[in-house]
Amino acid sequence: MDKVLAYLESQNDRFVASLCDYIRFPSVSAQPVHSADMRACAEWLVNYCKRIGLKTRLCPTKGNPVVVATTRKSGPKKTTSKKRKPHFLVYGHYDVQPAEPFDLWTTKPFEPVIRGSSLFGRGASDNKGQHLAHLNAVEAYLATGTELPCDLTFVVEGEEEVGSNNLENFLKANRKELQCDAVIISDTGMPAIDKPALTYALRGIVAVEVRLSGPSRDLHSGIYGGTVDNPAMVLCQLLAKLRDKNGKITVPGFYDEVEELSDFERNQFKKLKLNEADYRKHLGVEKLFGEKGYTPVEQRSARPTVEINGLTSGYQGIGSKTIVPALASAKLTFRLVPNQEPKKIIQQIDSYLRKLCPPTVKLTVEDGHYGEPYLVSPEGKYAQAALRTLRKAFGHEPVVMREGGSIPIVTQFKKILGADTLLLGLALPDDNAHSPNEKFDLRCFANGMKMGALLWPELVG
Amino acid sequence: MDKVLAYLESQNDRFVASLCDYIRFPSVSAQPVHSADMRACAEWLVNYCKRIGLKTRLCPTKGNPVVVATTRKSGPKKTTSKKRKPHFLVYGHYDVQPAEPFDLWTTKPFEPVIRGSSLFGRGASDNKGQHLAHLNAVEAYLATGTELPCDLTFVVEGEEEVGSNNLENFLKANRKELQCDAVIISDTGMPAIDKPALTYALRGIVAVEVRLSGPSRDLHSGIYGGTVDNPAMVLCQLLAKLRDKNGKITVPGFYDEVEELSDFERNQFKKLKLNEADYRKHLGVEKLFGEKGYTPVEQRSARPTVEINGLTSGYQGIGSKTIVPALASAKLTFRLVPNQEPKKIIQQIDSYLRKLCPPTVKLTVEDGHYGEPYLVSPEGKYAQAALRTLRKAFGHEPVVMREGGSIPIVTQFKKILGADTLLLGLALPDDNAHSPNEKFDLRCFANGMKMGALLWPELVG
Repeated sequence: MDKVLAYLESQNDRFVASLCDYIRFPSVSAQPVHSADMRACAEWLVNYCKRIGLKTRLCPTKGNPVVVATTRKSGPKKTTSKKRKPHFLVYGHYDVQPAEPFDLWTTKPFEPVIRGSSLFGRGASDNKGQHLAHLNAVEAYLATGTELPCDLTFVVEGEEEVGSNNLENFLKANRKELQCDAVIISDTGMPAIDKPALTYALRGIVAVEVRLSGPSRDLHSGIYGGTVDNPAMVLCQLLAKLRDKNGKITVPGFYDEVEELSDFERNQFKKLKLNEADYRKHLGVEKLFGEKGYTPVEQRSARPTVEINGLTSGYQGIGSKTIVPALASAKLTFRLVPNQEPKKIIQQIDSYLRKLCPPTVKLTVEDGHYGEPYLVSPEGKYAQAALRTLRKAFGHEPVVMREGGSIPIVTQFKKILGADTLLLGLALPDDNAHSPNEKFDLRCFANGMKMGALLWPELVG
Repeated sequence: MDKVLAYLESQNDRFVASLCDYIRFPSVSAQPVHSADMRACAEWLVNYCKRIGLKTRLCPTKGNPVVVATTRKSGPKKTTSKKRKPHFLVYGHYDVQPAEPFDLWTTKPFEPVIRGSSLFGRGASDNKGQHLAHLNAVEAYLATGTELPCDLTFVVEGEEEVGSNNLENFLKANRKELQCDAVIISDTGMPAIDKPALTYALRGIVAVEVRLSGPSRDLHSGIYGGTVDNPAMVLCQLLAKLRDKNGKITVPGFYDEVEELSDFERNQFKKLKLNEADYRKHLGVEKLFGEKGYTPVEQRSARPTVEINGLTSGYQGIGSKTIVPALASAKLTFRLVPNQEPKKIIQQIDSYLRKLCPPTVKLTVEDGHYGEPYLVSPEGKYAQAALRTLRKAFGHEPVVMREGGSIPIVTQFKKILGADTLLLGLALPDDNAHSPNEKFDLRCFANGMKMGALLWPELVG
């Protein structure tokens, strides 16, 4: 193991340079204009894995291809074999969020720049840097001739930021090959550089787009205004009724399946000690807002939410345009917690909006991607092995936490492969994931590689 | 007069061709990208007026220049002269509304096309075609050597669609030269091709932009969602409280100065006979919506309104982006009726929004252009002369009406020049002013030229 860790340290600069190369691909899965970039990015990754010595292929899907890279020289051993080597899956995604609004970036999103210990660029933290750390750890084993105590297969997809819609079919089609003892994902966060974390629960998500159409075209607000309803006004009136002043979501039935927090969990959350003044400063707000009766740590990780992600209607240019707009639309996401079911929630939202909507406009509710919430006990043997690894790799006591983000694929791994997932995130709270000026801390990158090296012996035990 | 009318008929095709030339200038005052087009358009108009034989000049303002063209050979006569010739002002505007959304136009907005009796193009009806009719009528006098019974001065500005902010100073600076007996404006509508109209009242307007800022940047809705307020949600909740379910505006004090409609007026409105089924079809809605207790004709011309003209927040591209947006904004206009005062109304809106806004976001209310409502008796001598003219020019009985649009400058003419305005509009209800596929009916153009010729003897009497 010493050789492995020494190799990682000696190659660190090259690993950082490779991460920069990786970030230069604008692999924005939400925007069709980047489809060639997606492909080029995937091919870069295939070559990276091959160079390490992994058996690698690019698997086509109906969307962006999945990169599969394994330490196995041939197919999976029969599960009846007594000497079966354990097999773990490492998941990551090479797609990134859109970089808009560009003008808020201080450096260009796809031209990585290092300042201090931070590497700036879209995708640096979410998720290119995090899964590259694991790949580099495996390179260290192979390059130093150190035997891995297990088989490893990397699955790196290109549609995480748009709902991983094609991964389910991919997993089903490759179920046998991907059968594993556990899945390891580094795509979550840690509270601070000295607080490595195991995340044992994730929120789910449903995305819907609400569209209202009024008159058949934008109308002169002087000539017609007063006789015809304004779809932007109706949209506001509908959306305003989704959340009350206590931060509770008002969709009937929405909380029916929510599992209340245990005293144990609420006590664990207290250890995460969020400094409210620092947190407000970090977000740039004068006052926080969340569901009454819960702490901010609980609100952002263990309670469901509704967010308006975007609003569009009428004239948005410079100056004014005196119209009754023909159309108004909103992009919404709801974060879900165990045991809310996305499809049931979408139904509830749809029925509620339909009930509220007046007959003066036409309503369309289009459901987009969704993912189920996830929860696994932090007391299992793999979780305990992961906590030991974190302690060694970071030199600090790890915390266990819930995270507010959604990794829909975690539920799929459970359903299709029967495997639980260990979430060992390397992102710091100020990494600006999904925001302008995303960065990744190079200390997290280095510790992440160390973690990636130390993890396998601990898991095999 | 026969010579004048014959000339107009003989030159009709050329006049239509000139109108097409005029429409080709994309003179969109709201969009700085068109500033060179504004200038070119104004210069085209200067040459047009000069060619007719008018003494013409381009008057600079802080914004777009004003075209002034007069039949007077020298300056204004002293008002003490016993033989003073009456002097009338004809007002128009060469700027047009933005053509967006371009994809809803069936022909290109700045490439005029004639189909049947309709000439399609942005600005055809609002207002290029309407003031060109008056210019052509004067050309007919001058070209046939027919003496005008009055002096005429044309004032054609380039900022009507953005609030005529520089015309007040222009009028003040040229008060002496522009002193007149009445102002004539064709920038309103008539209910049908066989129902010419004198408009005796206009609604006023105030435009405001409401901006809310939340976190200092777009935030990942999974990581932070639940602890921080969403400015798009707050925007919806604020705007939803501007209008109740009966279509009443809920800003405290908003109706205090509204003059209730007289029985005479409500009876006049009944004569305008709006066919509700046709009207719904024309607008493309299944159900109308307006203030309870008033007919659609009253709602759109004699009652105040609030309209959301545009909404902007967060991600508006293809797919989804899971963020809490940093900003949300709305463009609003309120139509006012006599005797509401714009500045007082802006104060009321501002106070109300400030009272409603929670401390979790920052509110900015920026007031844009505004114009006072207008009302003048339809029984005065000029109004009566105008009604006789309409009867002759169109061959049909005219109606008197209020119009829902706003021509802020009408109030300025009254305040600065002391002159009442005759509103003799040539726009048909389906002209799509401010909408895609704006058109002008060439029969209205021809009758408008006739009206422009017959008007002056009637007014001088």
